[in-house]
Amino acid sequence: MSLPDHRVVFTPSGRRGVVPAGTTVLEAARRLGVDLDSVCGGRGICGRCQVTRGSAPGFGNETDALSAPGPTEIDYRGRRPLAPGHRLGCAITVEGDVVIDVPVESQIHRQVVRKRPELASFPIDPLIRLHYVAVQPPSLADARSDVERVISALEADWDLADIEFDVTALATVHDCLVAGEWAVTAAVHDAKRVLAVWPGFHDTLLGLAFDVGSTTIAGHLLDLATGDVLASAGRMNPQIRFGEDLMSRVSHVMMEPEGAAAMTEVVRNALDELAGELVAEAGVARGDILDVAVVGNPIMHHLLLGLDPTPLGGAPFAPVVGSSLDLAASAVDLELNPAAGLYVLPLVAGHVGADTMGAVLSEGPHRRDAMQLLVDVGTNAEIVLGNRHRLWAASSPTGPAFEGAQISSGQRATPGAIERVRIDPVTLEPRIRVIGSEIWSDQDGFDASVAGHGITGICGSGIIEAVAELFLAGVIASDGTIRSGPDRIVAEGRTHSFLLWEDPRLLVTQGDVRAIQLAKAALYAGARLLMDQAGIDSVDEIRLAGAFGSHIDPKYAMTLGLIPDCDLSRVSAAGNAAGSGAIIALLSAASRHEVEEVARNIEKVETATEPRFQEHFVNAMAIPHARDPYPQLSTAVKLPDRAPPVRRVRRRSREESR
Amino acid sequence: MSLPDHRVVFTPSGRRGVVPAGTTVLEAARRLGVDLDSVCGGRGICGRCQVTRGSAPGFGNETDALSAPGPTEIDYRGRRPLAPGHRLGCAITVEGDVVIDVPVESQIHRQVVRKRPELASFPIDPLIRLHYVAVQPPSLADARSDVERVISALEADWDLADIEFDVTALATVHDCLVAGEWAVTAAVHDAKRVLAVWPGFHDTLLGLAFDVGSTTIAGHLLDLATGDVLASAGRMNPQIRFGEDLMSRVSHVMMEPEGAAAMTEVVRNALDELAGELVAEAGVARGDILDVAVVGNPIMHHLLLGLDPTPLGGAPFAPVVGSSLDLAASAVDLELNPAAGLYVLPLVAGHVGADTMGAVLSEGPHRRDAMQLLVDVGTNAEIVLGNRHRLWAASSPTGPAFEGAQISSGQRATPGAIERVRIDPVTLEPRIRVIGSEIWSDQDGFDASVAGHGITGICGSGIIEAVAELFLAGVIASDGTIRSGPDRIVAEGRTHSFLLWEDPRLLVTQGDVRAIQLAKAALYAGARLLMDQAGIDSVDEIRLAGAFGSHIDPKYAMTLGLIPDCDLSRVSAAGNAAGSGAIIALLSAASRHEVEEVARNIEKVETATEPRFQEHFVNAMAIPHARDPYPQLSTAVKLPDRAPPVRRVRRRSREESR
Repeated sequence: MSLPDHRVVFTPSGRRGVVPAGTTVLEAARRLGVDLDSVCGGRGICGRCQVTRGSAPGFGNETDALSAPGPTEIDYRGRRPLAPGHRLGCAITVEGDVVIDVPVESQIHRQVVRKRPELASFPIDPLIRLHYVAVQPPSLADARSDVERVISALEADWDLADIEFDVTALATVHDCLVAGEWAVTAAVHDAKRVLAVWPGFHDTLLGLAFDVGSTTIAGHLLDLATGDVLASAGRMNPQIRFGEDLMSRVSHVMMEPEGAAAMTEVVRNALDELAGELVAEAGVARGDILDVAVVGNPIMHHLLLGLDPTPLGGAPFAPVVGSSLDLAASAVDLELNPAAGLYVLPLVAGHVGADTMGAVLSEGPHRRDAMQLLVDVGTNAEIVLGNRHRLWAASSPTGPAFEGAQISSGQRATPGAIERVRIDPVTLEPRIRVIGSEIWSDQDGFDASVAGHGITGICGSGIIEAVAELFLAGVIASDGTIRSGPDRIVAEGRTHSFLLWEDPRLLVTQGDVRAIQLAKAALYAGARLLMDQAGIDSVDEIRLAGAFGSHIDPKYAMTLGLIPDCDLSRVSAAGNAAGSGAIIALLSAASRHEVEEVARNIEKVETATEPRFQEHFVNAMAIPHARDPYPQLSTAVKLPDRAPPVRRVRRRSREESR
Repeated sequence: MSLPDHRVVFTPSGRRGVVPAGTTVLEAARRLGVDLDSVCGGRGICGRCQVTRGSAPGFGNETDALSAPGPTEIDYRGRRPLAPGHRLGCAITVEGDVVIDVPVESQIHRQVVRKRPELASFPIDPLIRLHYVAVQPPSLADARSDVERVISALEADWDLADIEFDVTALATVHDCLVAGEWAVTAAVHDAKRVLAVWPGFHDTLLGLAFDVGSTTIAGHLLDLATGDVLASAGRMNPQIRFGEDLMSRVSHVMMEPEGAAAMTEVVRNALDELAGELVAEAGVARGDILDVAVVGNPIMHHLLLGLDPTPLGGAPFAPVVGSSLDLAASAVDLELNPAAGLYVLPLVAGHVGADTMGAVLSEGPHRRDAMQLLVDVGTNAEIVLGNRHRLWAASSPTGPAFEGAQISSGQRATPGAIERVRIDPVTLEPRIRVIGSEIWSDQDGFDASVAGHGITGICGSGIIEAVAELFLAGVIASDGTIRSGPDRIVAEGRTHSFLLWEDPRLLVTQGDVRAIQLAKAALYAGARLLMDQAGIDSVDEIRLAGAFGSHIDPKYAMTLGLIPDCDLSRVSAAGNAAGSGAIIALLSAASRHEVEEVARNIEKVETATEPRFQEHFVNAMAIPHARDPYPQLSTAVKLPDRAPPVRRVRRRSREESR
């Protein structure tokens, strides 16, 4: 006697089919190719396959279309709560025509909804999955190896084929089988390779995402199944003791025979210590971490990998390796699960790094129609321009002025640094705000609010605002000269400085203005060079990535002419886009293919050899238009959408194009 | 104007075709799929592509059918000798119809001719090949990564695709490119993965083959391109300090929490030290070693890999892993090239190890029609029976008597041990020979020849001969009893011993005879069990592998009934067949597939659960026939070729079958 068939529809996928009465919902989902999670393989342990009743046209809502709660479900409820309406997909059977909804938490490829609305959400595409299996204990009649019996159980229960065992998993498999009474949970990489084994049922699978910056290293600990960030931490890059900026670290390598090895060691230690902090904060085990994704600029990338960064210090800037890398986390001395992998995002070129590719992956210009300019300012500005059709990338030699270096009162963006500046256009009286305080200097409580750290200097965004405000106040001329004037303008030899603060005495000098002019001209010229390639004179959107991009006010960036024409409402900070890219790469195998494809196809533009770069640079030294915060918008000349042939050199000057 | 075409025939392959005049011989070979070696890619550096003129019907022998020596060939001759008639295939062009012979030294898949005639030769099938490439130095116009430029040169010059770089090769590639002035030699694994890079031209590629025995560890250093053994060395297994035999080492692991780790460490150190000895002896660099193949019994296999051997110490003897393994040599702490791989041959079962599979690969019963019995005697006897149609394997619990243990005057086979014994059947006067001397004890010069080490005991082959000779002399009865008799027979309580030597006093006791009887009955019963499976009563060929097999005289083995019926002329020693198997696996990728296939298909027979084993064992305790050295030959009853159904238990006793 054959059982009657019933129609089943799964939402939201819309997949539908017919299954015999008595089929479990989990089994029906598998047969119909529905994305329904399970770690325990239908044993009522993991609770990952929870479903609810859905609705669809032509379907009734008979309560008995799904079986009543049986012992497995009742037992599960005794251990963990089950939300109202939620059923265990593996424990209930189809007994009538039914619509079954798979909530997002039960999908393997669930969306990760990113907290800030401007960031695209992305689906998890797990590279590693946990599978629980029960295996036959060995007997004289069946004395196969432990590995063989785990593999055959995985292949039988989980519809896998040609499973291999990672050598690091060999050492523990026997003890796990014994401790788990011949039941284990295996972490399987790419449906092919057993990375690790735990006794019995194990439901934790973690990963780390690192953004290795020259100044700071940020790390995030994530649940690879849910995409939840369990902990985040950052620390100074300990390589700073070898040199504040990247180039001084490369110099150190060139001078000291053991310099590169020492820097490799300290950055690897820093990552491992950060891993330790993260697991301590989240209260998890290092051994549950099975994957790591890393971004970093080319020099950090090379130093972390133990590669000589010297060639990155000068033309032609050829890296040792640019493609993405898959290696063992142990290769960079991370003490995680011994089978943990390490994915390093690709570089674009020797001066456009994996951090830029992380930002591209996160911001996604290649997924959109809008022509986006993505700028990440550090010692160099890394600039990407394009949309779904084409992407260009360049690195502009801005120097470290935007980071507060080479500025007379400059400093890094740490508490006590002036980050906001307003100058009264009539009295020239300045108002400031410093990092670590939310209070302006002309407001009550300012002195108390800065007492902890004092006022120590001017950071990158502070000097930008100071120069822009001085320009808007008429103190600085369009060519960058500080004019002579009343009390606050101090003559120093043949030039003048502006006294921004009296105690401590902090000046904006003519040299400071020149440094900012050089940096902003380089940044602008790099962006223009890419726009020439694209044949455009304005962009649809500008995203300012990294710490500098987060702190700078777009209005001042445009006032000074750091960035090209764009609707100001579409100029915004991207936050730590590089780090977000590392997180995406950690959670999604598809995103790794995506970023590798983008890196292969992105067009590198070499600022050092393009004569137009020098031209744009010279033209961009001036500050565009006095007393008009949005000069570009009012005077921009719209050019035809289509570019001239790429190789035709556009000789029109920046002034002409306005 | 197109060039005329010429007919080319390559011998010995017989490949033929037509190429335009001016084609180099190397290029012609490539186009016609002829196996002609080259490391330098046709630059006249490596000399691997040497050819001579051959002959074939219908071809003349015009001297100008190949171009005259040009500058490349003349330059090569200035650096290295070129044998008479030898030409550089890459430097000469086809200028007429011609027959070209590729000598064996110029073939990539050359045969390795094994020194002993009874061993099959085998073709090298290199897993790793060296390729020389010149790459473009980077420039601002071409700032691709070092890795990218090496890969594209390899793909362009060597007809390779989708090449990847092993992470361990990254660290050195830049320095190699600079040191080699943008020319490097790359070691490419399986035409896919760059393992290592050397500056400029590099022509050395080495491998190690290890046989990790319980008592001794043997290592061989080989040239992976030619198959030449450059050095061989052996040393005691330092684990002996944890226990003389395998079972006492397993006991040590069970008693001491850190026992397994300590034994793993000492065996790994021993391998690395052996590697050091071998490279020192051959005067080569550890960094040129890129591959390692290992055989060993299951317990050595597990201890080397850091796996708990405890389950191998008792039924059901399930190993942790049985399949072949590919890992990094660094995973077992071998300090070779950091990219060096380690191939571990598969096990058949928890008591039939990778050493047995090495012996099978070397002896090749699965390649032949003859029904071969392959016996490797150690603490257990590992026994393989079969031919190209089917193979069976079992392990017989012989105990260590054959190794000289559990024998009153027994010792390991080291200088001073009695290894040969003759007993005058009339006077009962013994003659002996000891290891380290070629002189019998009744010959002149014996005393002087043993002065260095003395006479210290009786080794395994010595006790076999002693018992067999005593049996042939009538001192020992068919049931193993030592009869009472003249002077040399000493009463000891209720039993008798035979005084084999007076100074030092070495006796063959009744207990010794019993130990040998138990061991030989176990060995015989195991072989019979497999013969039952195969449905045969005699075998075509018996190969005795290992040290014991090399030292034992087949005549005495058959006299005592260690081995089943076989034409005595076809009973022979196989030498270190396990080690030979490691060498074959090292040199030939095809042989790895072969041994893995054989291991998967071999039928394991469990002596512990087969009731027939006990039956055979009891029946085999007696010594077959007095005073007839070849009883089996004269009385063997030929049984039908075809076996009864496998599961039918054969109840016929051993006596009946004769």
